[in-house]
Amino acid sequence: MHFTSERRLEGALDREFTLGDIPGILWTPESAAPAPLILMGHPGGLGKMYPRLAARARACTAEGYAAATIELPGAGDRPRFPAVDEARADLQRALKAGEPVSDDIVDRLVLPLAETAVPEWRATLDALLALPGIGGPVGFSGGVIAIATRLAVVEPRIAAAVLFAGSYVPRSILEEARQVTIPLLVLLQWDDEGNDRQHALDLFDAFGSREKTLHANMGGHTGVPHFEGDAAGRFITRHLK
Amino acid sequence: MHFTSERRLEGALDREFTLGDIPGILWTPESAAPAPLILMGHPGGLGKMYPRLAARARACTAEGYAAATIELPGAGDRPRFPAVDEARADLQRALKAGEPVSDDIVDRLVLPLAETAVPEWRATLDALLALPGIGGPVGFSGGVIAIATRLAVVEPRIAAAVLFAGSYVPRSILEEARQVTIPLLVLLQWDDEGNDRQHALDLFDAFGSREKTLHANMGGHTGVPHFEGDAAGRFITRHLK
Repeated sequence: MHFTSERRLEGALDREFTLGDIPGILWTPESAAPAPLILMGHPGGLGKMYPRLAARARACTAEGYAAATIELPGAGDRPRFPAVDEARADLQRALKAGEPVSDDIVDRLVLPLAETAVPEWRATLDALLALPGIGGPVGFSGGVIAIATRLAVVEPRIAAAVLFAGSYVPRSILEEARQVTIPLLVLLQWDDEGNDRQHALDLFDAFGSREKTLHANMGGHTGVPHFEGDAAGRFITRHLK
Repeated sequence: MHFTSERRLEGALDREFTLGDIPGILWTPESAAPAPLILMGHPGGLGKMYPRLAARARACTAEGYAAATIELPGAGDRPRFPAVDEARADLQRALKAGEPVSDDIVDRLVLPLAETAVPEWRATLDALLALPGIGGPVGFSGGVIAIATRLAVVEPRIAAAVLFAGSYVPRSILEEARQVTIPLLVLLQWDDEGNDRQHALDLFDAFGSREKTLHANMGGHTGVPHFEGDAAGRFITRHLK
């Protein structure tokens, strides 16, 4: 892990890094004690997502957490995944035509991302937890729900997760969801144009966690109400502090 | 409205009252300014429910709200509704036998209650809002969701409601739900043994409110997590203060 930039802002230290060829960002609070860590997921494109990620990170550091994110495979400045781009175009075509989204499209779109991203998040976690100033426990928040789900299955260091049911989940990962046992807060937009409501409810049902809460709100993909940010913060605090 | 008992406890004034032959309880904070009012629903049986209602009321008065409740028709010391008792027995039989709960049972169980209780809540509201120390706005919280739904349709003084999707709703009241426009927080227990999950989701979908949030948690009817009480308080504060 190499830090490539550093600045202090509003009581936090913001650092860009690379881990191999993966770019990432780490925000740490100015505190003597090792901070719990929140891994922040996103839909891809760190540059475009930066303002929203920085705002989420600011909310974390204000509460004494470190926050970190890495670029998704095939997104931002990383090498493209032509097969994934093609599947994304097929998804858009199906949605525009009002056709059902086939399992084949979802598999081609999401499985290569999950297969690449999950080991990358784990390697990032190894590197982050080796830094002074970052301790545990670790939470995960947002991003591509299929990636977060598989990460929650395979990565025992993640203690709780806030998931956004805003993207399609391959059937094989829906099955893996039964092995998730950590506390979950799942956010669902009732009329998400980029997901299927019943599939999202099926996924919520599938998670094996004893404590899982679904927060469903009106509106489309980008309409998550502001108060859900506060709710996510309270959920994280309940489980990580 | 006649007050029949009065005591001061933990900074609040607790008064039992009767409105005609309906018993009720009013909790008011010790404050000079007129307090917003929360009507607290419950499943019937004020005596049995008193400890939980008093705890909910205490949380209200601590935040500067008045809280009030009345006995349900056919419950506690009020005259029985033999036809409703019979429907309740039919419901228990169906649930025990693992049979589907018919629309006929739900209608016979809930419609007479709603038809009697809704005007009673409205008369109570008239009387309460005429008291010094109680102002508006008014929220409704908990209880039989079919009663709360119809009340939200017909009673314009109710500004927001926390609903517990823990009991069956007749199809006619499911249709009425489309006319509800106030902000709603709907609590759902994912494996409620006294309700049907899909019907609860259909009801949530039916509400006409632009702002409505569903909080679904694991477990049965009585397993609502403690943190949902705090969430309900924040929802009420957002809309009533």
